[in-house]
Amino acid sequence: MAGPKWESLEQCLEKHLPPADLCVVKHLLYGKETRKLSLPNRAFELASEGDFELQGYAFEAAKEQLRGPRTVRVGLVQNKIPLPADAPVAKQVSALHRRIEAIAEVAALCGVNIICFQEAWTMPFAFCTREKLPWTEFAESAEDGPTTRFCQKLAKKHDMVVVSPILERDGEHGDVLWNTAVVISNSGKVLGKTRKNHIPRVGDFNESTYYMEGNLGHPVFQTQFGRIAVNICYGRHHPLNWLMYSVNGAEIIFNPSATIGTLSESMWPIEARNAAIANHCFTCAINRVGEEYFPNEFTSGDGKKAHQDFGYFYGSSYVAAPDSSRTPGLSRNRDGLLVAELNLNLCRQVNDVWNFKMTGRYEMYARELAEAVKPNYSPNIVKE
Amino acid sequence: MAGPKWESLEQCLEKHLPPADLCVVKHLLYGKETRKLSLPNRAFELASEGDFELQGYAFEAAKEQLRGPRTVRVGLVQNKIPLPADAPVAKQVSALHRRIEAIAEVAALCGVNIICFQEAWTMPFAFCTREKLPWTEFAESAEDGPTTRFCQKLAKKHDMVVVSPILERDGEHGDVLWNTAVVISNSGKVLGKTRKNHIPRVGDFNESTYYMEGNLGHPVFQTQFGRIAVNICYGRHHPLNWLMYSVNGAEIIFNPSATIGTLSESMWPIEARNAAIANHCFTCAINRVGEEYFPNEFTSGDGKKAHQDFGYFYGSSYVAAPDSSRTPGLSRNRDGLLVAELNLNLCRQVNDVWNFKMTGRYEMYARELAEAVKPNYSPNIVKE
Repeated sequence: MAGPKWESLEQCLEKHLPPADLCVVKHLLYGKETRKLSLPNRAFELASEGDFELQGYAFEAAKEQLRGPRTVRVGLVQNKIPLPADAPVAKQVSALHRRIEAIAEVAALCGVNIICFQEAWTMPFAFCTREKLPWTEFAESAEDGPTTRFCQKLAKKHDMVVVSPILERDGEHGDVLWNTAVVISNSGKVLGKTRKNHIPRVGDFNESTYYMEGNLGHPVFQTQFGRIAVNICYGRHHPLNWLMYSVNGAEIIFNPSATIGTLSESMWPIEARNAAIANHCFTCAINRVGEEYFPNEFTSGDGKKAHQDFGYFYGSSYVAAPDSSRTPGLSRNRDGLLVAELNLNLCRQVNDVWNFKMTGRYEMYARELAEAVKPNYSPNIVKE
Repeated sequence: MAGPKWESLEQCLEKHLPPADLCVVKHLLYGKETRKLSLPNRAFELASEGDFELQGYAFEAAKEQLRGPRTVRVGLVQNKIPLPADAPVAKQVSALHRRIEAIAEVAALCGVNIICFQEAWTMPFAFCTREKLPWTEFAESAEDGPTTRFCQKLAKKHDMVVVSPILERDGEHGDVLWNTAVVISNSGKVLGKTRKNHIPRVGDFNESTYYMEGNLGHPVFQTQFGRIAVNICYGRHHPLNWLMYSVNGAEIIFNPSATIGTLSESMWPIEARNAAIANHCFTCAINRVGEEYFPNEFTSGDGKKAHQDFGYFYGSSYVAAPDSSRTPGLSRNRDGLLVAELNLNLCRQVNDVWNFKMTGRYEMYARELAEAVKPNYSPNIVKE
């Protein structure tokens, strides 16, 4: 197991492999090489002053006769919580707003058009505690809570679409909670919201203590820079979730997450990348970093002693492309901003080469799935 | 790009990384380490005499109170065509039977219970030529063709289930062709057959010149050693194809393939492995090796000059487990036999931890997909 101090796969390979082999290994692991973006020096200075990593890559597409390149820059933000989880709620939210404000400033310098923060970004990931107060106080209205208003200002200031995953308090429907991403247009208007469709019941992540499966289906948001969707966290394990966003036209699917080393680190490079391949779209996998300690002990259903943390979030945020290429990951343990320039023309180009939608036989699967969920379904098993 | 001479990712990493880093890198790339199987010396001798690679690994599961371990050994075979593609058809088939007979002998020594050969294993992968004769002469009856009879003998002799992917001639339905896998019980009886559900139209792989999408749905075969299914080649790009085999109860899904370096090598480690994770089952990805030259020139729809080959098959066959671990790959350029011992209890154990089926919301997707395929479907797109 890699401890939280081990920085990144890419760093290790670059340090030890001879250049010729490194090139082959990178190709086998990450497909066609992504071009390093040239970002402003000032952005690197600010990142260094702010103690966060900054990396930038570009994915290219073939030239077409009738369409110009459709380039968009996305920004993926991964970060620790700046204050301890037992600091007052308002102070924690405010510190996170300040942290994100600083990172968004650098993103703007780097020409980012769409920025996405990590899952439940205004709070520690406290659902492992199963306690309600004070954690439920982090919930806000998606439409006009302080965080949405903060993001509207950011969006307008930087002419940037903001994807803001928060814990939502739904005052219109019995004051219930949802795990929601608010999508804010670069005009500053709330374009809409989307909810986490699949809720984990895994170890410390039984989030159904707090909220239920999303009821908004698979909306796709038409922004000035392209059509985007948000598959929140555990939804990345469900290929059908990615598929429906893609069927609805998503060219970029963000996957803001919060997941830890012992649980999922060897799945992380596989799932969002598989989704980009299978659906001819870009996917952006974002995970938080750091360790979070909670005031009261809790157990994890794994036979171990009660404890106050649930391990380290391993960061490693990355962007994957429809041609199976991907960027390196951000660090496993530092705050970071990953800037990726996508030429969205690549989606249709790969679609036309690989044809997964044309050959997908969705009628057959709609029929088979509808049968399979019936209580009296008899699986197709051939016996001797 | 890695040329065909570059042997394998694992070999390169083992050569260059310091032991402590190697251990971390392996964990990040391949999950929980698989145990090396101790195989008989005689098996290694025969593999060396026969000039093929032999590797063996075991996947373990937690001990349960009520179920004993359900261990099964699978054998994955990857091979070159032993004779040139322009040798007489009967000679080529016979040479392939002899080659596979020798490898199966070693598999038997290694205690393999279920063996699976590569896609269309009795022939060169000639579909790139778009010629009919002589290639269609490689087609055989799935029920009683010479290759099925050959496999029945193998199965009986070694008490081994045989998965035999062939080009099928269907005499009962207008003498059409199919891309089919015949499943033969260890008793020697033909248990049944299953057909390639998704047919590529990609570059040199427009196989719809020869056969159409399979019409047998997603059958699962109950063998003495576990429930198995076969997702042939291009079906690995379709997450719903894997899903339906799993919904029907497959514990091991074989993916016999034929795919080349320039086309798919960076997708190869992703897709079958994602399927194992997403469906709580084992997947076995098998690809042929070597280059195949055809008597007449053909073009590839890529603007390049006519040529007589379509690059090299990169082997790299591997087994992936539901817990996101996987074996190393076989070589990229040598014939090989990969033996993997699976404890099938792991499937239900991981299912109970991660709950992807319980949280899958298949009713919703059956409904959404049925809507989405309607000609007048209007995608869920939110606009400002």
